[in-house]
Amino acid sequence: MAGHVSDAVIRRLPGYYRHLRELEAAGVMQISSQELGERMNLTPSQIRQDINCFGGFGRQGYGYRVSELKGHIGEILGLTNEHICIIIGAGHIGCAVARYPSFSREGFRTIAMFDVDKEKVGTTLEDVPILPMEELESFISAHHVDIAVLALPRRAAQDTLHRLYDGGVRAIWNFAPTDLNHPEDMLVVNVHLMDSLQQLSYRMAHKNEN
Amino acid sequence: MAGHVSDAVIRRLPGYYRHLRELEAAGVMQISSQELGERMNLTPSQIRQDINCFGGFGRQGYGYRVSELKGHIGEILGLTNEHICIIIGAGHIGCAVARYPSFSREGFRTIAMFDVDKEKVGTTLEDVPILPMEELESFISAHHVDIAVLALPRRAAQDTLHRLYDGGVRAIWNFAPTDLNHPEDMLVVNVHLMDSLQQLSYRMAHKNEN
Repeated sequence: MAGHVSDAVIRRLPGYYRHLRELEAAGVMQISSQELGERMNLTPSQIRQDINCFGGFGRQGYGYRVSELKGHIGEILGLTNEHICIIIGAGHIGCAVARYPSFSREGFRTIAMFDVDKEKVGTTLEDVPILPMEELESFISAHHVDIAVLALPRRAAQDTLHRLYDGGVRAIWNFAPTDLNHPEDMLVVNVHLMDSLQQLSYRMAHKNEN
Repeated sequence: MAGHVSDAVIRRLPGYYRHLRELEAAGVMQISSQELGERMNLTPSQIRQDINCFGGFGRQGYGYRVSELKGHIGEILGLTNEHICIIIGAGHIGCAVARYPSFSREGFRTIAMFDVDKEKVGTTLEDVPILPMEELESFISAHHVDIAVLALPRRAAQDTLHRLYDGGVRAIWNFAPTDLNHPEDMLVVNVHLMDSLQQLSYRMAHKNEN
């Protein structure tokens, strides 16, 4: 990758990837910074700047080859590596993640789900076994796990994070509505659903101010 | 509100609200910018600057009154207004939203869900009726709806957005994994789950670079 990539660019990368995937699926081979900018609500010069920043794929006057650029961004995003995942919590959010089409398509492979609910334990979801929480430690000592998805209530999340850390898991995708304390060598990315809904209610409350 | 509030501050507001709610629930009455900063991973001066920006609630040397500040931020976020919601799609994501505890606690009241699945139509979830998609227009013409939650597949989302717009709905909380085209006077906030997961895989792929 060419030079330093800013946080703002990194935040935009998944958006690039999503749009390029849609374009590719629609059979588009080539796109200009102008057209991509219109789709993404960015200026053409912003698009060119971003893309230059991670390696320079455009050809003056020709635009970008959609598949090539998508492949390159996927690589930067680490999507060319398969990620072995477990999902803690087989409630609605855990099941939604397990069934989310792009989850497995982009190489996030779920090998087990865990739950405390005895009705769910022993069943499978999309061929993934639902195991009892007591087996978490023995499972992660026997299987390599890249990412644990936390889809469980707030009060259980912190304790589970430490169990995962002790078992060697170093990346967490957290849906519990709380900010978790974690060791420095553990990566935690939060999906705080209410944050996004509150952005919406903020904008609704203030939309007549501009 | 005092002066212009930047987008960055607006993005941080829900985080303030979440932390203050947790502090309030834990019985904390008062908090310094130092302590709040440690919880939120911000510097004390950043905290003071943010809070000054929306009205100045601190008292030098005393810190902030938790409930007062939470109430004030909730007001800015528009959470003091009740929001009447419908959820389009009664799959895992739609049901997860309907059952999300803070959804109703913060005044987002779901009055109906809609689905195309004849097995689901006619049942209720948390006392909310699941109605057939064909009744969408008649329902929104008979009931005031502030927010529609789109929890349906990508291919159905754009068409549904237009039906909602034509029926007078002006705010969308979108879980479909696509960026929707929408009229200028409609607010759309997206929850792109894969974006957040890709942030995680990016950080996993690049964690040894710093």
